[in-house]
Amino acid sequence: MSWVDGAAGSLFDLDNLPYGVFSRAEESPRVGVRIGDHVLDLAPVAEIGDPASGLAAAWRTPSLNAFMAMGPDQWAIARRWIDEVLSDDVHEERTAPHLHSLDEVELHLPIEVGDYVDFYASEQHASNVGRIFRPDQAPLLPNWKHLPVGYHGRAGTVVASGTGVIRPCGQRKAPTDDAPSYGPSRRLDIEAELGFVVGMPSTLGERVSTDGFAAHTFGVVGLNDWSARDIQAWEYVPLGPFLGKSFATSISHWVTPLAALDAAWTDLPGQDPEPLDYLAVGDRAGLDIDVEVVLNGVVVSRPPYASMYWSPAQMLAHTTVNGASVRTGDLWGSGTISGAEPDQRGSFLELSWGGQEPFLLDGVERTYLEDGDEVTLRYTARGTSGGRIALGEVSGRVLPAT
Amino acid sequence: MSWVDGAAGSLFDLDNLPYGVFSRAEESPRVGVRIGDHVLDLAPVAEIGDPASGLAAAWRTPSLNAFMAMGPDQWAIARRWIDEVLSDDVHEERTAPHLHSLDEVELHLPIEVGDYVDFYASEQHASNVGRIFRPDQAPLLPNWKHLPVGYHGRAGTVVASGTGVIRPCGQRKAPTDDAPSYGPSRRLDIEAELGFVVGMPSTLGERVSTDGFAAHTFGVVGLNDWSARDIQAWEYVPLGPFLGKSFATSISHWVTPLAALDAAWTDLPGQDPEPLDYLAVGDRAGLDIDVEVVLNGVVVSRPPYASMYWSPAQMLAHTTVNGASVRTGDLWGSGTISGAEPDQRGSFLELSWGGQEPFLLDGVERTYLEDGDEVTLRYTARGTSGGRIALGEVSGRVLPAT
Repeated sequence: MSWVDGAAGSLFDLDNLPYGVFSRAEESPRVGVRIGDHVLDLAPVAEIGDPASGLAAAWRTPSLNAFMAMGPDQWAIARRWIDEVLSDDVHEERTAPHLHSLDEVELHLPIEVGDYVDFYASEQHASNVGRIFRPDQAPLLPNWKHLPVGYHGRAGTVVASGTGVIRPCGQRKAPTDDAPSYGPSRRLDIEAELGFVVGMPSTLGERVSTDGFAAHTFGVVGLNDWSARDIQAWEYVPLGPFLGKSFATSISHWVTPLAALDAAWTDLPGQDPEPLDYLAVGDRAGLDIDVEVVLNGVVVSRPPYASMYWSPAQMLAHTTVNGASVRTGDLWGSGTISGAEPDQRGSFLELSWGGQEPFLLDGVERTYLEDGDEVTLRYTARGTSGGRIALGEVSGRVLPAT
Repeated sequence: MSWVDGAAGSLFDLDNLPYGVFSRAEESPRVGVRIGDHVLDLAPVAEIGDPASGLAAAWRTPSLNAFMAMGPDQWAIARRWIDEVLSDDVHEERTAPHLHSLDEVELHLPIEVGDYVDFYASEQHASNVGRIFRPDQAPLLPNWKHLPVGYHGRAGTVVASGTGVIRPCGQRKAPTDDAPSYGPSRRLDIEAELGFVVGMPSTLGERVSTDGFAAHTFGVVGLNDWSARDIQAWEYVPLGPFLGKSFATSISHWVTPLAALDAAWTDLPGQDPEPLDYLAVGDRAGLDIDVEVVLNGVVVSRPPYASMYWSPAQMLAHTTVNGASVRTGDLWGSGTISGAEPDQRGSFLELSWGGQEPFLLDGVERTYLEDGDEVTLRYTARGTSGGRIALGEVSGRVLPAT
C-alpha cells in the first residue's frame, strides 16, 4: 500500500512503478517513476536517502539510458528503494514535495534510441498479411517458423506518445497503375506492438543466449509502428520496408521494468517445428498482456499478446546470433499483435481485410486512417500483487500531409 | 603548397584535408585533419588562433559530430583556416608541435553513427544479383528505375577500418536442404561502397530536396558492407536483409569533406524513365571516383563510382520524402559499386558469379572469403588542384567464427 493518494489498488500501484522522463515549467527533463497519477522526481529523493549513490546522477539526466546502463543489480536496488520510500509513511514528509501530479508535468521520449529492430512474431498477423497480399500462395513463407523474421527500422524517427503523425508522402503504384505517382499515402495504418528496451549492452562478436534476456533487457513500452501500406507495397521488394515505415514510430512515455511483469509470463502457444538450439526456450517464455486498439475513443480491437509465436528472448538471441552487439537504448518491436479472432487484429490492413471489408465505427464504414483520427494503444497485465497493472499507453493523431 | 614534409603533391595535400579522430598514448581521442602522412591536432591550434572559437571545443570531442552539427558555414571557415595554417610558413613554428606522424597515433571510428541506411544504386550490381538469384526473370525488379531502393542497417555495428571481422554464425538453408542448419557462414562476402555522412540535421515532417544535399551532407567515407550471403538468402524474404549484414559494416578512419570533391562531380550515366519530380537533379549529379578492391594485397577489381545510376542527392531526397528526419551522424551507403566489366564488380558474389565461376588469386581459385583474408577498399578522385586525392581507405581481416 502506498501512502500516495489514489495509488493503492490503481493500475499504477507499487507493483507497477514504470519509469519515464518528465519536466516542469522552466526545468530540465529528468527521470521519474509513476505512482498513481503522480510522478516522483527520483534524483532529489535519492540524494536524501544516499547522497553517494550513482543513481541520483543517472536520474538527473534527460533519458533513462544512464540508469539502464547500470545493469540489473542496480535496477533491483532502485526498485526496492522506491517501493520502500513510497510505501512506508516515515518517508512521506520529505518525499511528498517531489511528487508531482501528471497534470502539471510534461512527459518526454523516455530513451535515447540506439538501433530499432522490428519483428514479425505473430503467426496470425503474418498469415493474414500473406492471405491478403498473396492469396494464391501458402500464407506463411518457408523461413517464418524457423526464425523470428525481423528488420532494422529508423531509430531517429521514434517519437513519444502524443506526437502528431503527419501523413507521409511518397511513391506509390497500384498493380493497375502504369507508373508510380507521388502524393500522400492513401493507406495509412497502424501496427499495435509491444516494444522491448535494452538496458545492458553486449559485446561485438558475442551472442546473447535466450537465458541472457533478463540480464540485458530493461523493460517494455507500448509501440505503434505507423505504416503507409501503399508506399510499402511498391518499395519493399527486395530489401524490405523503408519509407513505408520510417516517417514515425510512436512509443509510450512509460517504460515498465521487467520486474513488474514477473506474474505476466505464460507459455508460448507452441512452436512446430522445434527451433534450432540457439532459439530454445523453456516454459513461461511468452507474455500474457491484453492490448486494446482505440480509434477516436472506441475500442476496435483487443489483440492478445499471449498469442505471439516467437518469444522476446528468442528475438534478442536471434538479433545477436551473428555476433551483432546490442547497446543501451536499443529498441525492438514485437511486430503487429494479432489474435485468431477478427476483433483481435492489430492493424487496419487486417481489420478491413486489405481495405476490401470496411468495419463500422460509430455507424460509419472505415478502412485506413483519415486525417484527424486519433489512435491509442493500451496494455494491461497481471501484476505481482494479484491485481492488474497498466503498461505505458501510446497515442497519436494523424495530421494532414504537408 | 604545404610546409608539412611530404604533403605537397601527395594524395593528402591541401586540396584533400580529410577529418578523423585520433589519440596518442594515454590521451583522449579528439579531432584531427590529415595532411601528408601526419595528423594535425586541431583543437590546440584553433585555440592559438582564436580562443573564442566554438571550433576548438567541437574538435576536443571524440567524434566529428559536434563539428559536423555546426553546419556548412563553419565547415567552410574551418577549411579555409586549416588551409592557411598549413600553407603559410608563418604558422609553422607554433603549429608544428601539434603535427603527429600517423605512425604514432591510433585512429578511431570518426563519427557517432545515427541511423545507417544502405542503398542499391548500381544498375550493374542490381542486374548481376538479379541474374544470379533469379536467372529466369528480368534482372531488375519493377521499382528499381523509379526509386533508389534502400533499407536500414545496424548503426551499432559500424566499425572503424582495421577492426577484425569475425565470421558470423547463423541459420542458412540451401534450396536443396530439407531444413535450415546453424553454423558459420560459408559465403562471406564484401560490398565495396561509398558512404555519405550527414552533418546538419533536418526537421521531422520536412523533406530535404535534391538541392539541399550540400547543406546537409558533411562528407564521404569508404565503406565495406560485409555480407553473409547464405544467411541473407534464407532470411531476407519478405522484410529484407537483417543478420546477413548486421554483424559488421566497416568505414574508413577519414571523412573527406564535400569541399574536397568539388572537381569530382560528373554527369550521371543517364536515367530512363525520368524519375518523379522530387528526385530531379541537374548535370554533374554523379561522382567520378575510382575504387579498388584489394584482396590480400592484390587488386581484384576496379569499380567505377561514375557508373552509379542513382545520385547521392537523390538518395537523401528519397530518404526524407516521407517526412523522415536525418540527424548529425546519419550514414548512408551507396550500395555495391559495380561497373559493366567483369573486373569492375564490387562483391565476390559477382566476381565469382554466385560461387560458380571462381577467379584466380595468385594462381589459386577463389570465390567467397576465407578466414585470414584481408580486404582493403581504396578510393581516389580528381582534386580541386588538378591532381588526385585519396579518400579514406577501409580495411578488415576475416577472423574465424567463435
